[in-house]
Amino acid sequence: MSQKKNRLKAKLFVVEGIKGINEFLDSHFELQQLFTTQDIFEAECELISDKDLLRISNLKSPNTAIALFKMPDPKPLVNKGLILVLDDVRDPGNLGTIIRLCDWFGISQLICSQETVDCYNPKVVQATMGSLTRVQINYLDIEEYIENSTLPSYGTFMDGASIYKTKLPSEGLIIMGNEANGISPSIEALVDVRIGIPRFGNLKATESLNVATATAIVLSAFKGR
Amino acid sequence: MSQKKNRLKAKLFVVEGIKGINEFLDSHFELQQLFTTQDIFEAECELISDKDLLRISNLKSPNTAIALFKMPDPKPLVNKGLILVLDDVRDPGNLGTIIRLCDWFGISQLICSQETVDCYNPKVVQATMGSLTRVQINYLDIEEYIENSTLPSYGTFMDGASIYKTKLPSEGLIIMGNEANGISPSIEALVDVRIGIPRFGNLKATESLNVATATAIVLSAFKGR
Repeated sequence: MSQKKNRLKAKLFVVEGIKGINEFLDSHFELQQLFTTQDIFEAECELISDKDLLRISNLKSPNTAIALFKMPDPKPLVNKGLILVLDDVRDPGNLGTIIRLCDWFGISQLICSQETVDCYNPKVVQATMGSLTRVQINYLDIEEYIENSTLPSYGTFMDGASIYKTKLPSEGLIIMGNEANGISPSIEALVDVRIGIPRFGNLKATESLNVATATAIVLSAFKGR
Repeated sequence: MSQKKNRLKAKLFVVEGIKGINEFLDSHFELQQLFTTQDIFEAECELISDKDLLRISNLKSPNTAIALFKMPDPKPLVNKGLILVLDDVRDPGNLGTIIRLCDWFGISQLICSQETVDCYNPKVVQATMGSLTRVQINYLDIEEYIENSTLPSYGTFMDGASIYKTKLPSEGLIIMGNEANGISPSIEALVDVRIGIPRFGNLKATESLNVATATAIVLSAFKGR
C-alpha cells in the first residue's frame, strides 16, 4: 500500500497510530481492517505482536496500530466559496501541510492536478493529522476545471499584485504552483488575477517561499479580512 | 560536525551544495575549507573524488561540494523593529523555514531560547537556503531577555485575540512556542498581548497549526498592514 498503483487498485490506504486511526474511525471513512498490539479501539480489530507491527509499518517507530481504510468515491464539486487548486505540488509534506491549512481556514474543497502527489500517500496521511477526513479532495484536469468554472481565478506569482493591497473575494479559485516551477504556462493563461506575497527583506535575494508556507500566507489574507 | 558539541568546540559548521556555498561565500561568513569535485568556485578549494565527497557528506546524494565556514561571533542586539523570539523550537525543518520567513519579511533579528535547535545544525543550514546569511540569530536566556526589553511582547496562543482584529505594532517582540507545548508558563507570564490565529473550519477539531506555518501567518499579519 505504500505504492500508489497498489493503493488505487485496491482502493485502500494506510493510517498509522492511535490518534490518526481514531480520527478516521470517527469520520465518514470506512474501515477495511485494523491491526493493533493493544485492544483499545471500539472497532473490530486483529491483535498482532510488536514484531509484526514493525514488519508491516511504514514508520521506523510504529505507534500501536495500523489500519486500512477504503478510499471514498469522489463527491461532486460545488461551485461556491473559496476553492484551492494545486498545480503539480509534488512533496508529500507540502500537500499534508496544505490539507491541514484548508481544514483550519474552512476551505472544504481542494482540487489537485493529476500530477500532484497522491493524498493517500502514507507520508501525506501522517502529515495531515486527521484533516484529510474533513477536506474534500478531487484529482482532475485542472486546466479544464478552471476553464469551465464561473468563479474568478487568483493565481500566485512572484510578480503578482500584493495580497495586502488587492481586494480578495469570499468566492473564487486560489491557484498555487509547483515547488520548483510555480504555475505552469497553460494554467497561467487562465488566471484572472495575478497575486503575490511582497518581500519585505533583502530584495536582491532570489529565494521564494516554500509552497506550503506561501499557501498559509495567501489563505490567511483571503480569510482574515 | 554533524554533532552540536563538535561544532561549538571548533566554531565551524558545514554547508553543502554549489548554490548554498556560493551564498555563504558572497556573505560576511568566513570560509575555513572547501572540498569540491569540480573546480568551479572563486574561493580556494581542495579537489576531491565523488567517493570522498559521499563519505564526508551528510546527504544521501551530495551535490558537488562541501564547505566548512566559521561561526560568526554574536552581534549586539538592537532594541528596535520587530524581533522574533522562539521558545524551544526543536525541529530543524521548522527552524529553517522560520529563518527563511524572517529573511522574507525583513525581520533581521531572531532570538532563540537555549533549548531551541542549533541554527548551524546541517538540516537547518540546508533548509534555510542562504537566508542564514541575512538573519542575525542569537541564543540566550529568553526569559531574562523579554523581562529586560522595553518593547511590547506579543505571544501566540490557541485562545489569543484574533491577529486579524488586534492592532499590531511595527515594533515589538513576537513570541512563538514549542511544537508540542506552545509557550512555556514562565515566558507566558511575561507576555503583554496574547494573540492567536482564529480557526475558520470545523471548530470541534483540536489540531493546531505547525509552528512554522503559524509563524508565516503571524509575520504576514504584522507586516502586511
